[in-house]
Amino acid sequence: MSASNRIHGLIQVYTGDGKGKTTSAIGQAIRALGHGLKVLFVQFVKGNSFTGEFLFAQKVENLDFWQFGRDCIYSSGIRENIIECFDCGECFIGKEGPTDKDIKVVRGGWQKVLNNFHRYDLLVLDEISLAIYYGIIKEEEVLDFLNKKPEYLEVILTGRYMPESIKEKADLVTEMKEIKHPYQKGIKARWGIDY
Amino acid sequence: MSASNRIHGLIQVYTGDGKGKTTSAIGQAIRALGHGLKVLFVQFVKGNSFTGEFLFAQKVENLDFWQFGRDCIYSSGIRENIIECFDCGECFIGKEGPTDKDIKVVRGGWQKVLNNFHRYDLLVLDEISLAIYYGIIKEEEVLDFLNKKPEYLEVILTGRYMPESIKEKADLVTEMKEIKHPYQKGIKARWGIDY
Repeated sequence: MSASNRIHGLIQVYTGDGKGKTTSAIGQAIRALGHGLKVLFVQFVKGNSFTGEFLFAQKVENLDFWQFGRDCIYSSGIRENIIECFDCGECFIGKEGPTDKDIKVVRGGWQKVLNNFHRYDLLVLDEISLAIYYGIIKEEEVLDFLNKKPEYLEVILTGRYMPESIKEKADLVTEMKEIKHPYQKGIKARWGIDY
Repeated sequence: MSASNRIHGLIQVYTGDGKGKTTSAIGQAIRALGHGLKVLFVQFVKGNSFTGEFLFAQKVENLDFWQFGRDCIYSSGIRENIIECFDCGECFIGKEGPTDKDIKVVRGGWQKVLNNFHRYDLLVLDEISLAIYYGIIKEEEVLDFLNKKPEYLEVILTGRYMPESIKEKADLVTEMKEIKHPYQKGIKARWGIDY
């Protein structure tokens, strides 16, 4: 597998508090895949292998989908995927901050990305800003990667709290602004739609 | 084929001037498909059958992808898809407003949606707000559909100039706010990324 050199790659950022950041990156991946480009989709600080996107990705050609985050305590891989999310919050880093295991998994993931990105046309770094927010990956490391990235590579970075320096470096920045959300009515994350 | 009755369907709106509305709807479709739900993805006022999402959709199970809009003059269906978009603007309705053919195609599409939505779990009405903006589909028709939709059906509506009444009816509204876009630097729509 080698990168196709077929696009002039730019840097895109999807940030803000509204729904649509991760789904937008998935949509971008699908568009690229439709044209035969190779995609690496990496999720940081998320290990929910029962999500629709993770399950779908298992059967798609030219797409690698990696997760470097806490496992959901109710699921451990696609073989035992669950049908319902209990919103227990255990698959996210809480107020107590990242554990040693969180740090090890996310750092290992970042290193794996650095070792392998050159094989793809599109690289999605989903929730990378959360890994930066929690101090696991340094803002400077990501900036350094973006500064040195090969011209053919398109990079999409998503997540809340995106550092200003990364937005400045990006060619495209969209802020997903939450105008209205079902959780305001007490509706929890829904299978099939929110995960 | 029949709808699976497996979700409590809500109404989502993605609007605003930023990139990410259509891609976000594609991402939502993929998530639902990953769980085995049935999806109808309808694009209005767009007939670009050379887009990555259209090409990808041809090989995906449980997904129907319909376009009701002007054909690109350089492509007429997936068999003769083109590799490059010349940004000629001919596949969009211009300042002169919709032609009789535009109206016929979009109206026919809307009717086909009304006849068939009950077979799906998720219905995406991509750029429906543009069809309303151009006066081809009435705001009241869409509202009426949303008011009467079956409980199991999730509906996603995207596009600029979304009428206030539809945003009010929706359970979730995200505004995609353009902070920065490559066209500001004179970069045109890119194959593999923008279409």
